[in-house]
This record gives sequence, structure tokens and C-alpha cells, in this order.
Amino acid sequence: MVQIDSIGADGVGQDMYDLMKKLFPICRSITGDGVRETLKIIKEHIPLGINEVPTGKKVFDWTIPEEWNINDAYVKNSKGEKIIDFKKSNLHVLSYSVPINKKVSLKELKEHLHTLPDYPDWIPYMTSYYEENWGFCLTHKQYEKLKEDIYEVVIDSKLEEGSLTYGELLLGGESEEEILLSCYICHPSLCNDNLSGVVLLTYLAKYLKDIKLKYSYRFLFIPETIGAITWLSLNEDKVNNIKCGLIATCVGDSGQLTYKKSRKGNAVIDKVVEKVLNDSGEPYEILDFNPACGSDERQFCSPGFNLPMGSLMRTPYSNFPEYHTSADNLDYMSSVHLADTLNKYIDVIFILENNFTYLNLNPKCEPQLGKRGLFRALSGGKNLKLDEQAIFWVLNFCDGTNSLLDISIRSGISFKNIKNTADVLIEKDLLKNSNKR
Amino acid sequence: MVQIDSIGADGVGQDMYDLMKKLFPICRSITGDGVRETLKIIKEHIPLGINEVPTGKKVFDWTIPEEWNINDAYVKNSKGEKIIDFKKSNLHVLSYSVPINKKVSLKELKEHLHTLPDYPDWIPYMTSYYEENWGFCLTHKQYEKLKEDIYEVVIDSKLEEGSLTYGELLLGGESEEEILLSCYICHPSLCNDNLSGVVLLTYLAKYLKDIKLKYSYRFLFIPETIGAITWLSLNEDKVNNIKCGLIATCVGDSGQLTYKKSRKGNAVIDKVVEKVLNDSGEPYEILDFNPACGSDERQFCSPGFNLPMGSLMRTPYSNFPEYHTSADNLDYMSSVHLADTLNKYIDVIFILENNFTYLNLNPKCEPQLGKRGLFRALSGGKNLKLDEQAIFWVLNFCDGTNSLLDISIRSGISFKNIKNTADVLIEKDLLKNSNKR
Amino acid sequence: MVQIDSIGADGVGQDMYDLMKKLFPICRSITGDGVRETLKIIKEHIPLGINEVPTGKKVFDWTIPEEWNINDAYVKNSKGEKIIDFKKSNLHVLSYSVPINKKVSLKELKEHLHTLPDYPDWIPYMTSYYEENWGFCLTHKQYEKLKEDIYEVVIDSKLEEGSLTYGELLLGGESEEEILLSCYICHPSLCNDNLSGVVLLTYLAKYLKDIKLKYSYRFLFIPETIGAITWLSLNEDKVNNIKCGLIATCVGDSGQLTYKKSRKGNAVIDKVVEKVLNDSGEPYEILDFNPACGSDERQFCSPGFNLPMGSLMRTPYSNFPEYHTSADNLDYMSSVHLADTLNKYIDVIFILENNFTYLNLNPKCEPQLGKRGLFRALSGGKNLKLDEQAIFWVLNFCDGTNSLLDISIRSGISFKNIKNTADVLIEKDLLKNSNKR
Repeated sequence: MVQIDSIGADGVGQDMYDLMKKLFPICRSITGDGVRETLKIIKEHIPLGINEVPTGKKVFDWTIPEEWNINDAYVKNSKGEKIIDFKKSNLHVLSYSVPINKKVSLKELKEHLHTLPDYPDWIPYMTSYYEENWGFCLTHKQYEKLKEDIYEVVIDSKLEEGSLTYGELLLGGESEEEILLSCYICHPSLCNDNLSGVVLLTYLAKYLKDIKLKYSYRFLFIPETIGAITWLSLNEDKVNNIKCGLIATCVGDSGQLTYKKSRKGNAVIDKVVEKVLNDSGEPYEILDFNPACGSDERQFCSPGFNLPMGSLMRTPYSNFPEYHTSADNLDYMSSVHLADTLNKYIDVIFILENNFTYLNLNPKCEPQLGKRGLFRALSGGKNLKLDEQAIFWVLNFCDGTNSLLDISIRSGISFKNIKNTADVLIEKDLLKNSNKR
Repeated sequence: MVQIDSIGADGVGQDMYDLMKKLFPICRSITGDGVRETLKIIKEHIPLGINEVPTGKKVFDWTIPEEWNINDAYVKNSKGEKIIDFKKSNLHVLSYSVPINKKVSLKELKEHLHTLPDYPDWIPYMTSYYEENWGFCLTHKQYEKLKEDIYEVVIDSKLEEGSLTYGELLLGGESEEEILLSCYICHPSLCNDNLSGVVLLTYLAKYLKDIKLKYSYRFLFIPETIGAITWLSLNEDKVNNIKCGLIATCVGDSGQLTYKKSRKGNAVIDKVVEKVLNDSGEPYEILDFNPACGSDERQFCSPGFNLPMGSLMRTPYSNFPEYHTSADNLDYMSSVHLADTLNKYIDVIFILENNFTYLNLNPKCEPQLGKRGLFRALSGGKNLKLDEQAIFWVLNFCDGTNSLLDISIRSGISFKNIKNTADVLIEKDLLKNSNKR
Repeated sequence: MVQIDSIGADGVGQDMYDLMKKLFPICRSITGDGVRETLKIIKEHIPLGINEVPTGKKVFDWTIPEEWNINDAYVKNSKGEKIIDFKKSNLHVLSYSVPINKKVSLKELKEHLHTLPDYPDWIPYMTSYYEENWGFCLTHKQYEKLKEDIYEVVIDSKLEEGSLTYGELLLGGESEEEILLSCYICHPSLCNDNLSGVVLLTYLAKYLKDIKLKYSYRFLFIPETIGAITWLSLNEDKVNNIKCGLIATCVGDSGQLTYKKSRKGNAVIDKVVEKVLNDSGEPYEILDFNPACGSDERQFCSPGFNLPMGSLMRTPYSNFPEYHTSADNLDYMSSVHLADTLNKYIDVIFILENNFTYLNLNPKCEPQLGKRGLFRALSGGKNLKLDEQAIFWVLNFCDGTNSLLDISIRSGISFKNIKNTADVLIEKDLLKNSNKR
């Protein structure tokens, strides 16, 4: 059993932000060299394993697609001016665009352009993974300046046999039971969704890797949807070991914390995260499971697996207008909040690791605390201090049916206080482990 | 399995109103020719069976009473003026009044008069089925004008051996399981309570009789209380086939819809009706079961039967002052709302008929919808359209434990949308019937 | 089965208040002659058994302490003036103070003085049962007047082998199942906490002792904590007979009634007390069980016993500032509210004694009430009277699974009304006892 303390917020927040800055310019997609470059940088921090799954492999109902890579892309007007330039932002190209090199009229060009009229300064992020297409994304202001002309359209991309690349790290613990922590590495220059999750899990793994842990912790850095499907398809034998887990996404903005429950709705992870948020004293929101929006919990919680996986976020994908636009950039991120979310993940793990079920060894009436130095000798005042209250809660409810988490939820006392109290009572031979977790 | 669409509101509402107008003047009671005449008119619309149960027959704790018929009734003052006249309103006579023909003082007369001081323009509706009595009901304004005089009191009624008459119609379906739909035909010139229910069930049976149905549908047109007791007593062998049902009463006023739950409280009918009301987007109210007020659910939900029978009404009996008075007349009725309630009954039947439990045939991860033409190729936007959301809800929760109703309740998506989505997914071989209903 | 009526509030309230007045001046502690004198006075009212448990006896984790008695105590200044005098208030001495007789400086004296700076006119109540100490309690105003001086400090107390004294009374009923009613008699001149509880249980026992009862009733007059531990330790064989019970404390002030639930939270006592409070129509509060504050329910509800014991109070200990101060005196008490709380305890016992589970002997449809004189012959009005409603509730829900308490809770009708109705229906052969309680 391990004691996990919070990390100082200032230092780690800045380090996380710096890593994000380094990863930001890389053009990622669900396959290709951008993913490999990203995983290589993460590997400088944690001993990540890199896996390649070949194009054409069947993964449940899906097939690993051709690998997509891109060198350059632009649209030039007849004067030879680049009016849309991939080098300036990788969002300008529809992800998985097929190669193209031709002259087109404004009319034909417009059929392949995507903008956000409601946010005229932002470039949208668009993809077409499973249907051949090409396109450019641009600000609506750029779009409105386009005139009748003959445009040169170049997308220097390749779609060919290759592989899907993902990263995986297992930190072995005392038990083979695993906590699964997953993020997706397929989005290009977009921060909250989801470089923030990538950076958070990198630093969480970095923090946990040198600690003696009860549970094993599996970290996945995968492309969204197809990556989760691929991992589940290749690792069906490991699924039974998964106790619970979290999807890390949208964890770097300055909004309040939000938890989307697992499909089960009352799994241990759901109770643990709600308790962490409640103990924090900060405002938060709990959302019910919804299979029609979200990220890889849709695969992990599909009815054939129904894994207890939730998603601990700050502002969820659908609630910030910057989502899937060029405005989800480094300016939208907060190093303080990145570190705060990391600490909340650590708090979750602290509870998971320490949620023992103890037995009161003196269950008939209260033990005499005074003779053990656990209680003030002089009585008379009205209310006990919180620590004294915790003693009575732990003693009364450690009957073998309530875990420390249950007791902390019922009493409204923080898990850490309940845990510390239980430790003292164990030292005083008033509690023992009932060997249930 | 049958598709049931809503009926155009204008036409059917007027037809229902016209039938009510035809039935309104008839003097009904729990027995007698008024009931027979009423059932004969209903039989012009649907192939109703007419049953006669003889006076004196024991039905559980009760006995079929003597049959009551009335030709005329009036009170004349000494000048020979009819000051109360049954021909003007059949409410003027206390139902089941024994025959009388005598001269009485004002004092004696008043012992047999009933008025509503709070509503001085309305005639109350009163009965004395099981204790011999006679009486007249009149407006309080009429009553206050009465002077000392010798009055001639005539009630030309008969109470004699005969029978209790009721109507019954069984529309056979694929299954022997029955949906029971019951209304009472014992009230004289009173509209919401309960010519509205009589007319609604007539038109519902008319609509269903030519449709291929999964369940069988039994319609009862019975006198309240004694009729339900009689039917249950004579048909105990049929009770086990009853899946659930509704009592139709107070369905023609313009108030909001109200559902009184079955005694079980969470029976399928309770969930279905609440979902119909919720899907409607209109305000509504749900009432808990209460054995101390209401109609024949008190018999059907008695502890020896405990049938899952609820009551889908508009303004319930106890909530409109016109109840059991001459003000519950044709003016109080709305053809639009009659049709609207009929459509809600049809919506209830639509869910009952279509509430299948399906199995996702691709339960491990989401299937690839795009290659089946079920999902837009180009991704990027924030929120799915409602139909796309329904696909994910149906796929995720069709695990053999959730019916389509369960899924529509949990998702907040309308049952019809969920049902249509399931149909599409069956066509695409993504779902199959799990043979549970 | 016994009918228990409420006691006229005026008379008994004054009697209770007079008894409290008599007990008020006695200097009680957890042991000693003050307890014996108190029990002797109570014994003038009820046939109390007095038990003595010798010093040194082990009771679970605890040991019966030495017996403490005190003759006198004071602090004199150098002029020989008594500036603190035990004879004026027994709160002036720290309970269980060891004997002392010496001259001390102001500095040394102050180390042994206790005051309430926030309530400068009140003397606090302090104890040091299990650690040798001595001390005086005084008003903060007295304390502030103390000048540099040499003070003579005298506490003429004895701490020596002796015994712990408690009172017990068992009123045997038809059944060996017991209702446990407990109060603590260890506090000196303090009224709400807890002479009020002592007086209440005295008068409750006095009232019940001559009545034929279904259950047996055990009354405990014990020192708090150590007394409950002692009784449980000596009577483990009796614990299985305890059906449920109440701790009587803080029952004499004029605040609203408050119920602290048992650890089980949904035990029959919890439902009964909530129903009594609800039926009263007065405001009240329900508190969840909390092992970190309260009285002897902490022992009775310890996990090794987990007895369904709640606490029916007026203003709870922690909510009135007078608690454990000289302001919790006779002026703070209200004879009217003492009697009112007694009546609520009687109401609780009334439900416990009468909470039968009956079977409707005519479960198929409603019985014909009219022919049994249970229902008005003339029908027409809108709402039944409450008594008629109760008939339908009792008949419909007496199916062998619902007790009269369950029915009264579900219907919202008072337990007494439901009980009276059931009695009438039994007389009419419509109900029978299903031999479940």
C-alpha cells in the first residue's frame, strides 16, 4: 500500500504545458508519422511500448485503414499567392485527404472548403477517415475574400499500406487487477481535445512508475475509436483484469471539473471520482453515461465489454465553442488547471489504492479512547473536533460491510481524514484488515 | 406487429362529439333500458356483445339489484304548475328512486330535495342504489323560490326483477394476453364523467378492430362498481390473461392529461403512459394509486386481483367543480381534446405493441456505421443529430436486459424515434429480437 | 392488545416539572451517593430495581471506576471570602476532582479554572472521569475579577473503592420481545440534559405499569456511556430480545421535536417515530444516525450490537447554547412541552403495540359497505370523508404484506384513524389478523 501525495502545482503544471507546446505543431491523424513522432517524445518521459498494427487487419467490425501521411498542402490563386497553407496550420487540410494536384474554378474549390460562419476567425477541424475525399478548412473571413479565379490545389499526401501506431505502458502492481487509463493521440494541433489528456497521462505515469502500487496501471495512447477498438480486439484476454478506469480528455482548460459516469453508473470508479470532487470543496458536475457523445468510453462501455470506465474532464467537449477549431490552442490552456486535474487523478488513485475494508476489533460498545491517548481527558464542550469525529465514524462502521470509501461518503468526512484515522486505529490494535477490498 | 398511426384530430373529434350528443339525453342508471339503448347505439359502431345478468345473482359480496326504469317524474305546486320536471333533465330525479305519487307539505318535500348551495345554477347528480329512497335534485335558485304549499309528487318508476346489462368486445390478437379497456355506462346526462370515456373506447375499438394486433384487446362498457364486480365475478378464469389496462373516464375536457397509476405503481402500463405523456411535450400530472377515490380500478386493483390497471384522464373527477352536476354537459366538452386523448390511448397501444427487447449483434465496440450508410462520412461538428444519437443509444443498451421502452426512458428520446431506429438497425443486421417482451 | 390514550397535558406536565425540581439540587456524577439519592426518589414513583456494580469490574474495554463523592468545595481569597462555593452550584467543581486542600497563587489557580468567555454569566459543566485532575468552573465575569492573591483551595471529595449504581425496571408484557427505554442519571444540576429524560421515563413507566401490554418494556436509569457499557456487558443474553428502543434526552425545552434515527436507519422504530411526528401536524426534524455525537445510542448501536435504538428529543444537545452550562436550568424547562414529549412517546408505544398486519377477508373487489352500515346510502358528492377513505385504504392494502403502519404511511392518514378503521372492519368480519407483526 502506497501513500501518494499531491504534486506541487506550479512546477508540474509548467512542465506539462511545455510538453504540450512541443507536441502541438505535429500533424497527427489516426495513423502515420505524426503519431510516431508524438509517441517518441512521450517515450522520453515514460517507458512506453510502441505497437504497429498493419493496414487491412480486421478488428471486430472494423479494418485497420491505410496509413496517411502528408508533406504539404496549399491553395494558390492565379497570381501564385498561397491563400491556404498547411505549413501555417495543419488544421487547414481535411484529415485523410487523398493526394490532389489540379486547377479548379472557385465553384469547384468551394465544394471542398469548410468554415465556421459563427466563428469567422477560427479554422474548423474536419476528417474523412473512411470515405475518400479531399478538402481544406479555413476561417470564414478568408473564405469570404475568395474571388472568381483559377486556383491551384495541391495536397501532397499519401494513403498506402502501412500500420496503425499506438503506445502502451503497464505499471505492474501487487495485484493483477488493472486500472485502465486511456487517451487519444490522433488529433493534430488541438490542445484541450486532446493534447491535454496525452500530457496528463504522461505525467501521471511518470509519477506512478517509481511507486509501489497495489493495483497494476495500464496506460493507452491510442487513436480515438479505431485505436480503442484495435486494442480491445487484440487484448480480449486482458479485459477481465480491468477493475475500472478513466478516459483523459479535455483536462487543461480553466473550467470546473466534470465527471461522466460509466455505463454501470454506480461502479467503484463512479463513487471514487464523485468523492474526490466532493472532498475538493470546489464546484463540479456529474453527468450520466451517454453513448451518443464522448470518446473511447463508447467502446470500453459497449455492451459486449461494459467496463466501468468514466471520464474525468474539466469542460466537456460539447460545452466549449473552441472544440475542434483552431481556437483550441495553447492560449486556451492553463498550466495551473493542468496540474490541478493531474492532482485529482492522483486523488482518485489514492482512494482506489487505499479503499480497505476494516474490522473493528472492539465491536461491542466504544473502546475507551482516553486510556489510549486518542481522546481528550477533559470533557464538557459541545462538538468534537473533526479528527475525533472520524474516530467514531470509523469504529462504528468498520463492521466488515463498509469500505473506508463508504464510511467517508456516509460521514461526509474527507477520505484522507478517514484513511488517516483508520491508520491510527490499526496502530492501536482497534482495527484489522478484513481482507476485502 | 402493427404500425399504428395517429388519427387526424379534426374529423374524429367531431365524430366522437356527435356520438356523445346522441347518447346525452338518455336516462341511464346501473340497470335498465337506458343502458340497453346506449349499448345499441354503440353497437352501430363496433360489434359489441350485450350481456344480461339476472337480478338476484350473487357476484362476490354483492347481489345484482332489481332493475330500475322510469317513465316520468315531476313535482307540481297547488296551481298545477310543474316546478321540477324529469323531462327537462334526467338529473332531477334521484337515481333508483322508488315510485311515489302523493301530496306533501313543503317541509316533507324538502327532506327529499338536493341542491348545491355553492353552485346555485347547477342541478346535482345523486343516487341511492342500495337503499330504498326517493328524491329530487334541483338548482339552489329553484329551491329558494319554494313557498309553503301542498305539492304533488310523482315518480313513475319501476323497481323489479330484471337484469344488469353490459357490453363487451374482444379483439383477438396474436397473443392471448389481453389489454383491458374499461368504461362505465351508468351515468345519465353527464358528459366528462363519463360519456367521454364511452365515446373514446367506442372509437378506439373502431380503430383497432381492423388492425392486426399482437395483443388481444378487451373492451368493457359496464355500470360502475357493480358492473366491474359482476364482470370479474363471471370471468375469474380470464383474469390471468390480462397484461394490463386502462379505465377511460373524464377524457373530454380541455384540461391537461392526468394519469392515475396502478396499485403496483411500476407496472409496464405505468411506465408506458408516463413515457407517452413525457414524449408529448405537453404538461401532465401523474397521481399515485389511491383506493379511496376513482372508478373501477378500485375493483380491478383490489388485493385479490391486483391487476395493473391505471386511469388515463384529462381533469380527474375530483378536480372539476362541474363533476356530478348538470354543468358536466356538452358545453364542457371539447372535440379537439376528445381526439387528443384518443391519440394518447393509441400512443400507449403503439408502445405496448412495439416494446420489444432486442440484442445487439455486434456488442463488442460500436459497429462501423459509415460503411452501412448509417453515419455521415465527414466528421467534425459538435453534436450528433437526434437520429444518430438514437442509433448509439439503441446499440449500446440492446443487451437483452433493456426493452425499447427502457432505452427510450433512459435516453430521453421519444419511443417512436427509438423504435424507428431499431427497425433500421434490424434491417442492417445489427439487432435481432431476443424473444423477450 | 391495549388502548393507550394520551394523558391530559396540564396535570402531568406540572407533576413532571415538580419531580425535576426535587432532583435538580442533587450533585450527581457517574457514581456516588448523588445517583443513589436520585434513584431513591424515582423509586417513590415506580418499582425500580437498584443495581450496584463494584469498582474494578471489567466491562468490555472499560473498568468500573472508583466511586466519587463530595462534601464540599470552595476557593477562598486571602481575606477568607469564599469566591467560588460548591454549595451555591454543584457545577462549580470539575466532576471527579481529586481531593485538594492547599494555598495557590493566582497563576496556579487559573490552570484549574474553566469558564465560557462567550457566555460570561454562565458556569460551564466539566468532567474528568478517567484522568486524575481537579478544577473549578465559574462564570467568566467571576474569573475576570480575580486579582493577584494567595487562594485557599479546598475540595473535600473522596475517590475510593465502591460501586457504580444504576436503576432498572422491566414491565413484562405478553411477549418476551422488549422495547428498551434508556436515560442517563449522571449529570448534576442540569435540566434538559438530562433531568428531563429521567423525569419523562419515570412518568412513562408510571403510566405503563398498570396497563396490559403486548411487548415487555425495559427502563434503564444509568450513568451515560459507562452505564450503557456496563448494562450491555452484564446483559448480553438479553440483547436478542430487544425489538427496538429510544434514548430519552433533551425532552423538556420548548423547541420542536427532533428524531435521530437508529444506525439501521429504516428500522421499525424509525418508521414509527417519523409517523408519530408526521401525524402530529407540528414541525419536526429527522436526523440521520451519527456515531460522533449523541448519547447512549452510540453504545447500543455499536457494530457488535447494532440495536435499532433512536433518540426522540426536542432541541438536540448540540443545538442549544445552554447545553452543559448553568443556564440549562429549571427556567429553561417547560411543563407543557415535557407533557407533550411524554405524549409523543406514548404515541410511539401506541403504534408499536397496535401495528398489526391484517388480511382482507373479501379480497376480490370491494365488499358492499352499505349493507353493513359502513357507507352512506346516498351517493353523489365529490370527496369521501376521511373515515370513509380509511376504510378503502385498509381494505385494499390489507393483503398480508402491509402492516397498519405501512398503510398509514402510504395513505397519509393518521395511524389512529387507520387503527380505528381496522377495528371496525374486524368487528364486521371483513379483516382478520394475519399473525404477523
